Amino acid sequence: MSKSTDERLRRTFELLQAQLRRESEEPVAPVESAEELLARLDLRVGEAVDDERLFATLDALVAATPRTTTRRFFNQLFSGRDDFGVIGELIASFLNSSMYTFKAAGPQVIVEREVTRRMAELVGFDQGEGLFVPGGSLSNMVGMILARNAHRPEGRNEGFHGAPLTLYASRQSHYSLPKNAGMMGLGRDNVREVDIDSEGCMRPDALRERIQADREAGLDPFLIVATAGTTVLGAFDPIDAIADVAEEFGLRLHVDGALGGSVSFSARHRGMLAGSDRADSFTWNAHKMLGVPLAASVILTKRRGELHGSFDEQASYLFQDAASQYEHGTMSIQCGRRNDALKFWASWKSHGDAGLGARVDHLFDLARYAAARVESDDALVLSKDPSSVTVCFEVRGRSSEDVCERLRLEGRDLVGYGVVDGRRVVRLALVNGAMDRADVDAFFDDVLAVAAHSEQSDNAIEAAAE
Amino acid sequence: MSKSTDERLRRTFELLQAQLRRESEEPVAPVESAEELLARLDLRVGEAVDDERLFATLDALVAATPRTTTRRFFNQLFSGRDDFGVIGELIASFLNSSMYTFKAAGPQVIVEREVTRRMAELVGFDQGEGLFVPGGSLSNMVGMILARNAHRPEGRNEGFHGAPLTLYASRQSHYSLPKNAGMMGLGRDNVREVDIDSEGCMRPDALRERIQADREAGLDPFLIVATAGTTVLGAFDPIDAIADVAEEFGLRLHVDGALGGSVSFSARHRGMLAGSDRADSFTWNAHKMLGVPLAASVILTKRRGELHGSFDEQASYLFQDAASQYEHGTMSIQCGRRNDALKFWASWKSHGDAGLGARVDHLFDLARYAAARVESDDALVLSKDPSSVTVCFEVRGRSSEDVCERLRLEGRDLVGYGVVDGRRVVRLALVNGAMDRADVDAFFDDVLAVAAHSEQSDNAIEAAAE
Repeated sequence: MSKSTDERLRRTFELLQAQLRRESEEPVAPVESAEELLARLDLRVGEAVDDERLFATLDALVAATPRTTTRRFFNQLFSGRDDFGVIGELIASFLNSSMYTFKAAGPQVIVEREVTRRMAELVGFDQGEGLFVPGGSLSNMVGMILARNAHRPEGRNEGFHGAPLTLYASRQSHYSLPKNAGMMGLGRDNVREVDIDSEGCMRPDALRERIQADREAGLDPFLIVATAGTTVLGAFDPIDAIADVAEEFGLRLHVDGALGGSVSFSARHRGMLAGSDRADSFTWNAHKMLGVPLAASVILTKRRGELHGSFDEQASYLFQDAASQYEHGTMSIQCGRRNDALKFWASWKSHGDAGLGARVDHLFDLARYAAARVESDDALVLSKDPSSVTVCFEVRGRSSEDVCERLRLEGRDLVGYGVVDGRRVVRLALVNGAMDRADVDAFFDDVLAVAAHSEQSDNAIEAAAE
Repeated sequence: MSKSTDERLRRTFELLQAQLRRESEEPVAPVESAEELLARLDLRVGEAVDDERLFATLDALVAATPRTTTRRFFNQLFSGRDDFGVIGELIASFLNSSMYTFKAAGPQVIVEREVTRRMAELVGFDQGEGLFVPGGSLSNMVGMILARNAHRPEGRNEGFHGAPLTLYASRQSHYSLPKNAGMMGLGRDNVREVDIDSEGCMRPDALRERIQADREAGLDPFLIVATAGTTVLGAFDPIDAIADVAEEFGLRLHVDGALGGSVSFSARHRGMLAGSDRADSFTWNAHKMLGVPLAASVILTKRRGELHGSFDEQASYLFQDAASQYEHGTMSIQCGRRNDALKFWASWKSHGDAGLGARVDHLFDLARYAAARVESDDALVLSKDPSSVTVCFEVRGRSSEDVCERLRLEGRDLVGYGVVDGRRVVRLALVNGAMDRADVDAFFDDVLAVAAHSEQSDNAIEAAAE
């Protein structure tokens, strides 16, 4: 290690420690516009700058970055900073392994295999396997590709001709499904949005009708996607009943458990995934409820060899040990692939199954507590009983959008709004294991404080904006 | 910051420093089989372990991981450790931004915009833009999707029906093209492998004939992919002549410059990309020749708005500022997306355009030096004059595969083999800017030392293995 590398690492750690202090003293970063930031920070690249100036710019950049790791960040389905999640990520970045072969990544691919094998077991795929994929959207795409290739095995080589293929998911399913359908050549219009019940869960009867109607119209249904944890309401589709429909029609079943997969650690809540063992594939993001850094998304499959069957390619300079189960590059949509497994492995080792289960239980409890807090206050209106770890509500007579914006501009909290039943609502995401009831109370105190001068609105929105 | 977090970070840094010492003293990790590693290391997850035991396991795991960052790692098209590349990555991991909106990532999305805008200019897209994508394979997929959507605008919504779409790339193009074609529903068979010349570059005359024949057969050619830096030979297709063919037939042109894009920093070598300004899109991986950690891959487009046109989806809970140019999630194949921009930005700030250009020149010089070293030794046979930063050769009468395996087993060097003109050859990848001529000399000394007891072979392979 050169003297300068050592010195630079030391300065980096001072910078990170300064940020830890800032996060603790001021959990929401000062708000500036993009124009102000561009004018103030030296962000252009071209001329070399010396270490002094570069560290100063980095420090200013870090200070101005929204603080996703604090107890005041409720804006996304990730929040907080898990010690060993971060440590695993730092080490992985430092080692710079590429996860395609055992020769290049050694024990890191074994780590990936151990983690994904255990995750597969947890969702009921006892003989299953899995792989890290850069994000839940792409994990869902892998599940969609596996399903299409199973349905029309000739298509991978020949392309897909004949009757249009259709897939089915709830109206509350993730937007990656139509996005992926566009990318995969299925066509976004061939993603059927199935009606939901009052809890935001897909209705198996509506699903059955929709498939039946498409079949009769000469289309070729191939896949149902059940959502375990929708983005706004955190609702869980009834997987078991949906699996019945999949069986009835001979369709594949993929579970988008990007948010909800983590409940499999909880003895109290894992029943929400009942029937997942009957699915063919499963998306699960450990960077959501479990708090490891982005991205820690996994595609799980019931059957070993399916990933290989859809993604193996010849590359004689790279894949040279076909007998190995650790040539993960032949199971992946990527070639070079960073190590997203180590951070979750390290976090899991540190907490154990029991610790992760307790974290999930804690988050559910916090959501119940927050809902009760809303119900106890006449100024607040609960949109629905929370299904899992998000709580949607309104401030009576006040614009949900404006409430969120004021919380941000006043440096109090970062929280987002969504749409529920045609109304704009505040969505409080409780996914940070370090939070406790005092944080929830502080949040609602902030909400009430800014609501006093927020814009009036009944929050009803036009259908087009939903 | 809690006491325990502080202590854990301190231990992490001791662990990284121990690894730096190991890398310097023993640049190739001890070789163990997967079975030995599984037996020796406590890799199972389930029970919680205490910090003491977890750090001990992490340390053993780190020590056993192949060392991609040393001067003895020639196995991949990445190698080494750039100080500010690593620092940017450590900071990004710590901040855990998700790059979909300005609200969530603030100045980090401005950083991404600055870096990609300048990269676009460097390849000749003066009005272009770009986005970070997790790896070159997926960047190529984005280029392929943009091309298909431009060719058949109705397809994104309706799916692709009618005449099969075909695309064209050289026989030496990257395996991600057929992989992506399988994923996108094009069919792997519809990727046409075009003949190459003696340097490994696509022949424009063969390309023209192939397109013409497919058109006459009723197929629907839509895209040519030119490769700037092939994986084994580092060859650069003649982009300008290929652009003529693309124009003649009205086809899109994508450049896979995952390896070669970086030569645009070099005044001496950027002529190898001549014509890239005529392409529609361009893949460029900064984690290859420029040495920043994996992954730092970018898709660049000539026309602003094309990414948005293919990947925007409604998500009322997330994309709430349609007027903003910083809603990068509406340009991306991902939803949640880690910050891969900061590491390249930090490295670029540190080196400047001139420093990165000098790095590229240095790597080309090293390759020339290595080739001359091969030619000066009767025991070695140069496969071809190097086109860029890889050098392919054989040890006369010795198995290339066995030479590589002995280098690894004896803890000397990690280097891979590939196939050139029906012969198995050692591929020396010179992409680590910290290496110098002494490292090249040391490598060949090692090669000759192990060759003395390597298996005999003429390295001719069966056509099927190519």
